[in-house]
Order: sequence, then C-alpha cells, then structure tokens
Amino acid sequence: MTLNAVGRFIPEEINGRKLRPFQGAFSFTPAGCSVSTPLKISRPGDTKVLKSIDEAIRRSGLSDGMTVSFHHHLRYGDMVLNMVLERIAAAGIKGLRLAQTALFGVHEPLVRHIRNKVVTRIEGSINDVVGYETSKGVLEAPTVLRSHGGRTRAIESGDLHIDVAFIGASEADPLGNCNGVNGPSAIGPMGYSYADAQYADTVVVITDNLVPFPAHPISIPMTQVDYIVKVKNIGDPDRIAMGTLTMTDNPVRLKIARYVVEALDACGYIKDGFSFQAGAGGISIAAVKYLGDRMREKRVVGIFVMGGSPSMLPGCWKREQPGPFLIPSPSIQPQSRA
Amino acid sequence: MTLNAVGRFIPEEINGRKLRPFQGAFSFTPAGCSVSTPLKISRPGDTKVLKSIDEAIRRSGLSDGMTVSFHHHLRYGDMVLNMVLERIAAAGIKGLRLAQTALFGVHEPLVRHIRNKVVTRIEGSINDVVGYETSKGVLEAPTVLRSHGGRTRAIESGDLHIDVAFIGASEADPLGNCNGVNGPSAIGPMGYSYADAQYADTVVVITDNLVPFPAHPISIPMTQVDYIVKVKNIGDPDRIAMGTLTMTDNPVRLKIARYVVEALDACGYIKDGFSFQAGAGGISIAAVKYLGDRMREKRVVGIFVMGGSPSMLPGCWKREQPGPFLIPSPSIQPQSRA
Repeated sequence: MTLNAVGRFIPEEINGRKLRPFQGAFSFTPAGCSVSTPLKISRPGDTKVLKSIDEAIRRSGLSDGMTVSFHHHLRYGDMVLNMVLERIAAAGIKGLRLAQTALFGVHEPLVRHIRNKVVTRIEGSINDVVGYETSKGVLEAPTVLRSHGGRTRAIESGDLHIDVAFIGASEADPLGNCNGVNGPSAIGPMGYSYADAQYADTVVVITDNLVPFPAHPISIPMTQVDYIVKVKNIGDPDRIAMGTLTMTDNPVRLKIARYVVEALDACGYIKDGFSFQAGAGGISIAAVKYLGDRMREKRVVGIFVMGGSPSMLPGCWKREQPGPFLIPSPSIQPQSRA
Repeated sequence: MTLNAVGRFIPEEINGRKLRPFQGAFSFTPAGCSVSTPLKISRPGDTKVLKSIDEAIRRSGLSDGMTVSFHHHLRYGDMVLNMVLERIAAAGIKGLRLAQTALFGVHEPLVRHIRNKVVTRIEGSINDVVGYETSKGVLEAPTVLRSHGGRTRAIESGDLHIDVAFIGASEADPLGNCNGVNGPSAIGPMGYSYADAQYADTVVVITDNLVPFPAHPISIPMTQVDYIVKVKNIGDPDRIAMGTLTMTDNPVRLKIARYVVEALDACGYIKDGFSFQAGAGGISIAAVKYLGDRMREKRVVGIFVMGGSPSMLPGCWKREQPGPFLIPSPSIQPQSRA
C-alpha cells in the first residue's frame, strides 16, 4: 500500500495494473501516444447494415475475455445493453469485461450474465440492483468506477481498450452516420459514446430508426462506424427521467435547492439570455424547478440549458433568443452525471 | 522496375519508400493500425492563443527535416503558407518536407525557400510557378503528388506523417474550435485539413477572426488544436475563383461542356430538388454555367451544389427547399479538386 496526496492508503496494483497514487490535481504529465485503431477498407457492394445482433457479434470477432462497451443515454429506458448481452450469452462467449458508462435498475438481467460468467469484470458506473450484486464480490476482479471524463481519457490513452462498442442511436443511415436527436427514441446528445466511436476496434450502431443517407445532424460520423443493426426498439425515452433524475422530497434537500436559486439570483445570474448546466441528483433537479419558478416570476428567458433535469425544463425555457448553443431538437438534454 | 496492373513500369522504391505496384482497384487490403497522436494536458492558466507565428513555431518543436502541412481552401487568395514559411525560414529551420494539399501562383515566394533549402521535399498537388521550378529537379527527392482522398488515407495510415499542421480558419475561438464559414475571409468547408487536425503531432490554427468561445459551427474541434495565432489577414476570398476555377474560352472545351448539360438533361437529372458536385477545371466550370442557364430556362431549383465553381453559382441556386445538405453560409463552396 502507498499513501496518496489526500492521506489515503491505496494498493500498489489492482487487476494486474500498477496504480499511480493521486499526487494532486494536474501533477501528472501524460507521456506517449493515444491508441490507434485498425485500418479498414470498404469495397463496392459491401454493406454495413447487418441482419441481426448475432451477425454483428460474429462479424466483430468478439470472443472470450474481450471488452465490450455500452452507454446510458437512455438511462432507465435503455434496451440496448440487455438485448446485446443476451445474444452474446447465447453465442457462448464468456469472461467479458463490461465497460459501460453506467448501469441502472433496468439492467437487472445482467445479474444472470455475471453469475453465468459471461461478464467477469466491470469498469464503469453502477447503480441499483447490479450494484448490490457486484458488492457481494461475485466478479473476478474489483470493479473500477471511473468519472465520465476520466473514462474518456482512459479510452484515449489505452488504459481502457474497447474491443467492441455497441452504440444505441435514435437515428442512423446505412453508412453509419447517426445521432440521438431524431426518431421515436430520441435521447439528445451522444457524448458518452464519442471516445468509444473514435477508439474502439469495432463500432456497432444499434438503431430503431434507419433512415436514407444522410442522417442529419451527424453526431457520430460514418467514418467511425463498422456495422449498423436495426432493431424494433432501442428503449423508452420516457424512462430517462427516473432514478437519479427524480426530484427529491426530502425537506432539507429541498431547502438546499431553494438556497441555490437565492444565491444565483443574488449574484445577478438570472437574467435574459443566461444559460446553465445542471447535473443529475434530487437536489439539482429541485433547484431547476425552483429556478424555473423564479424565471417565470421575473419574466426571464434563458438561452440554453444542459444537464440531468429533463422533466423540469419544458415551459421554463423558450427559443426566443437563438444563440450559438441552441440545440436543434429535442429541447430535453439528458446528458447528466449518472 | 516492376510492371503494374495497367502495364506501366514503376520503380520498386522511391524516396527510400518501397512502392506497391497498382494491382487493380480494391485489390489491396490494409493491415495494421492508424497513426496515434501524442497525449497532451491543459493545466489551469494555460492558454492556446500565442502572440505570433514565431512563438507557434517554437512551441511546436519544429526542427530540421520535419514535415509541415498547409491547405488550399483559400486557393489563389491564400496568405497562410507564405506567412508561415517566411517565419520558419527566419528561424533558420532547413530541410523540411512540405505536405500541402495544393500550391498555386500565389505561393511563388516558396521558390526562394526551395533554393535556400528550407524546403527540400514536397508531397502534395502543385500548380503554376512552383510547379515549373520543381520540374527542374531542384528538390532532393522526387515530388509525390497524391489525390486529395489518397492524401487523407496516407496521413491516417502513417505513410505521410505530419509533424506540424498550420490550418487557416476564417473563425476560431481561444480554445481552438474553428470553422471556415464565418468571418471576413470565409472559405467554406475545411475538409482538406481534417486528416491533419486529427493526426498531426501539433496543430496550429491561424485566423484573422478570433471570436469569444464558442466559435460556431465547429468544423475542427478544440480537442484537436494545440495553438491559435491571430494574424491580420489569412487571405483574400475573392481570389478563390481563379486559375483552375476560371471558365475556359477554348471552343472545343466549351462544346464538351454543352454536351455535358445535354446529357444530364436527356437523363432527366435536371429537376427540382436535384443536386450535384462539380470539380475545378475550365470545362467543369463552363458546364456549371450552362447548367445554370438550362435551370433558369426550365425554372428548376436545385437543393445543393458543391465543387469548384463558385463564381458561376450565385443566381442559379435558391434556398427554397432546405434539405439535409443545405450548407448554412456562405453558399460558395470552394471544395474542389485543385
């Protein structure tokens, strides 16, 4: 064990990887290069659109011990992770490392895949039932929780190598251009999956809305996508605003949220054309609600908002001042911390 | 010498690089991985905005024998290449490989840098006076002309490693987000420089229009940009439509251009909502003019156009049918083959 800069003892090694004890913010200077990705070719007549998830798993070369990634843009409404893991399990593949951005209650079927040794390691954020299960020590190696930003760095630098990324998109075209803002399962920005799209060896887009080329706008470009699979449903966007995106009813927390808005107002921030970002979590959501009330009271119109606060937003923001940040559609931005 | 698939003898090696004789389209399957780029860090208080091109050259670590790249979005109006090479020469750096996308008459000062051994190798498209000069055999190694698409592949695969890319942008913000559609020197899309932005070791953006964060839209994102230098002028967009973008007056060529439009019309392509791409070159430009005449005659309105035909376009295209391809501004698209 070694002592880090905030006085905690940490192991020198975990999962076979040497650890660097925290020495203070910005104390570490990275060396070396980003990971590189396999060179590929498309020949005339090739198609990226595959008939099934089974075919995508086969074509990706996924095999025992590899790392697969998923993203929680659909949060509690996500169907992509369960759907793909079920087919991976059916293919008899074992010992995978799961590198999801976050897990929620909806991913309860994963417990079975852990017990059956389909998934034996996890690197990513975990909530709810899968969290309880993994806390029992059923995995082969300690779970690594990374911040969302830290995960991006880890993928770029090769600390976390993704063999196959499965990316749910609410709109995709047959060449692989895709976004999260159009289609029946619109989810908003797809930022959680950008690092995977850029650095994974193989990128599979799963969509329930395959449109003629070109999908527009383009969040992830065709140059980063290997295969596309159309499924019936990638998820239920109505279930995004649940769990960590539900408002608190704890009176102390509500009071904190009220103080937040008082502080913002006292600082002069609540004025026409202002913008803000809110994270997930009950207090944050409550603060957004109170902020909306205060804005209506003061007849103030904001320019843009992002964060884990979708259900509180409609009605308190208008598009009367189009600005550089204005996001085309939908106005709901589920890009919050898990 | 070896014989290739179209019956030509080619050397087995050039500039110390083994050549693969052409064996037919799509006959080659790439192996290995894309190049990777140095990992970097931004610390609080760091700024990417430098005081001068001299400082950018110093900070980039540019030294003898390295490769620098430039892009011809501004074509005959480009001032970036001359401006930067003059400072590189002043710094006493020698033996550079120049990996520009294209050179034109405006780059005549380069002749001096070639004679002074500042530039000793060239990989890229060359027109006009520099072409005459290099034809004399004054460079240390044979010049390599690549197609614009082939250049992108060569950069991605590491065949053409760029040490420092200097990218002219008509708008940039202090974090490095930039585009070519806003500002007094607007040039249109910046596609020629995308591969450089992604894969060069160091990326320097040169702009005459530094705006507060965020520049919008974002053609090249801040994550790919190391330094920004503000200069008085990156170029003169009025001089884009010159040279290979000038209409021919050769009667045979004009006849060919007329036949092109007859053929298009006979095929039924000239109809409301259609689109096309034109390349540079006198015949191509003339065909665009005749196409415009025919469209007016038939009262047909197109949806989008791209290609080396800017001065012929105004007036023959309207924005009555906004579509997925519609480019925000300007309507002039100088993205043509050189």
